[in-house]
Amino acid sequence: MTDAYDPTRTAVLLVDPYNDFLSERGKLWPLVEPVATEVSLLDNLRAVVAAGRQAHLRILFVPHRRWQEGDYDDWDHPNPTQRLVQQRHTFARGTIGGEFHPDFQPADGEVIVQEHWAQSGFANTDLDFQLKQHGITHVIVIGLLANTCIESTARYAMELGYHVTLVRDATAAFEPAMMHAAHELNGPTYAHAITTTAGLLRVLENGEN
Amino acid sequence: MTDAYDPTRTAVLLVDPYNDFLSERGKLWPLVEPVATEVSLLDNLRAVVAAGRQAHLRILFVPHRRWQEGDYDDWDHPNPTQRLVQQRHTFARGTIGGEFHPDFQPADGEVIVQEHWAQSGFANTDLDFQLKQHGITHVIVIGLLANTCIESTARYAMELGYHVTLVRDATAAFEPAMMHAAHELNGPTYAHAITTTAGLLRVLENGEN
Amino acid sequence: MTDAYDPTRTAVLLVDPYNDFLSERGKLWPLVEPVATEVSLLDNLRAVVAAGRQAHLRILFVPHRRWQEGDYDDWDHPNPTQRLVQQRHTFARGTIGGEFHPDFQPADGEVIVQEHWAQSGFANTDLDFQLKQHGITHVIVIGLLANTCIESTARYAMELGYHVTLVRDATAAFEPAMMHAAHELNGPTYAHAITTTAGLLRVLENGEN
Amino acid sequence: MTDAYDPTRTAVLLVDPYNDFLSERGKLWPLVEPVATEVSLLDNLRAVVAAGRQAHLRILFVPHRRWQEGDYDDWDHPNPTQRLVQQRHTFARGTIGGEFHPDFQPADGEVIVQEHWAQSGFANTDLDFQLKQHGITHVIVIGLLANTCIESTARYAMELGYHVTLVRDATAAFEPAMMHAAHELNGPTYAHAITTTAGLLRVLENGEN
Repeated sequence: MTDAYDPTRTAVLLVDPYNDFLSERGKLWPLVEPVATEVSLLDNLRAVVAAGRQAHLRILFVPHRRWQEGDYDDWDHPNPTQRLVQQRHTFARGTIGGEFHPDFQPADGEVIVQEHWAQSGFANTDLDFQLKQHGITHVIVIGLLANTCIESTARYAMELGYHVTLVRDATAAFEPAMMHAAHELNGPTYAHAITTTAGLLRVLENGEN
Repeated sequence: MTDAYDPTRTAVLLVDPYNDFLSERGKLWPLVEPVATEVSLLDNLRAVVAAGRQAHLRILFVPHRRWQEGDYDDWDHPNPTQRLVQQRHTFARGTIGGEFHPDFQPADGEVIVQEHWAQSGFANTDLDFQLKQHGITHVIVIGLLANTCIESTARYAMELGYHVTLVRDATAAFEPAMMHAAHELNGPTYAHAITTTAGLLRVLENGEN
Repeated sequence: MTDAYDPTRTAVLLVDPYNDFLSERGKLWPLVEPVATEVSLLDNLRAVVAAGRQAHLRILFVPHRRWQEGDYDDWDHPNPTQRLVQQRHTFARGTIGGEFHPDFQPADGEVIVQEHWAQSGFANTDLDFQLKQHGITHVIVIGLLANTCIESTARYAMELGYHVTLVRDATAAFEPAMMHAAHELNGPTYAHAITTTAGLLRVLENGEN
Repeated sequence: MTDAYDPTRTAVLLVDPYNDFLSERGKLWPLVEPVATEVSLLDNLRAVVAAGRQAHLRILFVPHRRWQEGDYDDWDHPNPTQRLVQQRHTFARGTIGGEFHPDFQPADGEVIVQEHWAQSGFANTDLDFQLKQHGITHVIVIGLLANTCIESTARYAMELGYHVTLVRDATAAFEPAMMHAAHELNGPTYAHAITTTAGLLRVLENGEN
């Protein structure tokens, strides 16, 4: 990867860093654990966020809707994932599962975007607006899951005119095949750069900014 | 007005019914009071909401961003109104001014849309999505202010493909000239119907649904 | 699949039925041919469009930007696919490759949506608006390619509040693995129904409408 | 007005410079003429475009849908203006009225945005995307009409996160009261700057860029 990132124009989008995904007691952790462990997900998320802050990139938290009583109940056609959330109460508001993992807490002044109802952090939220009011043109999309919220957020980012970077090992999925689909089959058709945590850190740290 | 409203396809959008706008101690009440009193704003808002519920129309609450510490501070270019909110702390979260007026409280199951940062209740929120998941194609836009949030929400609604109704006396503005501009100069160019509370009630109550 | 399709609320979105994709002399046909032949793509597209018209579903044509001189030249960051289009002149305006395949011509009154610059037929076009002005809430997304324009259009449709149906064999991709990713890995997370041409035809023809 | 305009970040949006609005034989010219003459509209539009090009600002053409046979015929609810277009065939494709005025022709490389169906040049078009791919954060909105397409385009620009400038005498309307509403009543609530052609030219020419 040869792109450098101008810190005044680049943001890290940290998608859905909930305990339900990232903590041992999380409702979805058992489904994520095999891939997360293989890629060293938590170490890499910590490293990207730390390096981003160090390089003065803006970090935005991009959270999924925290489930609450009544959600989806009178919708005309919730999708399959939304029906699962409705049953499982994933990311339930007021529970630990619906809080951000202790290692991924917004620092002073970091933006927390409106919650998204489905997969894209841009859809039905203020993410595009927040990026514009902060002068951002390049986004690095990390978090969960590689083929759902990360991919939809990243596809939207490209459609909306942003430069998009994916980080192979700063995300996870329920199956290795989904990681492969996200990074080898689909990502190369829309993303501007696909790198690794180590590759990204070299760019952020080596004065190329 | 001859249009009838199919209750399964019609919603009332109640925009910014905050104490800061509608209550005697509200920060903006002194600016709104002359027009609000002249048109009997509170009586008419109560009447439209009641008639809407009676006719089984869906009511959606469309709230402005409640100000909180830090809002707008690092934005590249807040607009003039946002700079005023930044100084005045209008609709401050955790204060009475940032609560809905006691007569305009969401009933069980009524949707509260994501907060909007500027004038349009559609921009950077889930309003369009919520309307789609509830099968809504026609919106009746009431609340504050006629020439800012009501007009921008209504203009957006039309651009997004909705049928739009304005209600002359279920809104208010800082000056009578702004009411005139909203309903006589601009509204007729984009809105599908412009009526009064009495006119709307006749349609909702007279079995035309 | 048990869903029925109300013809007054359902549309077929026919994405990118260009000669460059579908005709033997098309620039991308050699890349599409293996999968297209295996799934009988052209027969199935013809069958879905014919059955849709027969059932009085609305058919919308959702075309990619036809390349013309100067496209992408001064963009800040075209994506990898856009750079390929820039070199290959894919779907070039004024050439046969940039015309719809002879078997997929808009009938009288059928809508041709604004051209899309990337993968989603909704992004930066009037597709959402056209669907609203025609009362559509359910979309059946067919055409090319399964993991790029079809998937992004379908993901967007879901985010925007539509009910989404994919048809496994009324699309194609450059590799079988991309078909698998689209229909077995990603589709089930966001689409409301995934069917086959035969399955869809049974629903459309058997009076379930 | 004290804002300066960075030419790499600023664009002029020239909205609807059609012969039907601006030429003596235009269908709407008789309605526009009184105000247009009073503010020296054509001279001012020529001056802003020339000064913008001189200062290396990007000029984007933002055209209304050119009417063609069948437009609006099967829509569920065209708005009042759209029904007038349907009758009058305003900006008809293939006629002189639907061509840009001879003095306002795109120069080599200048972007012509997708046509808009209603009042906002952003709604259902690629305008936001084009601005992003060209690094634009500040827009100067000129053309026709002050209280319809200019106002809706400018309101949308603000909602989408752009810095917005209005130019009082580089636009017109059917009545002086509509000009007053646009620039004295509504504009100050959302626009970041409201200036005149002379004021804008001083900023663009005096090395403040």
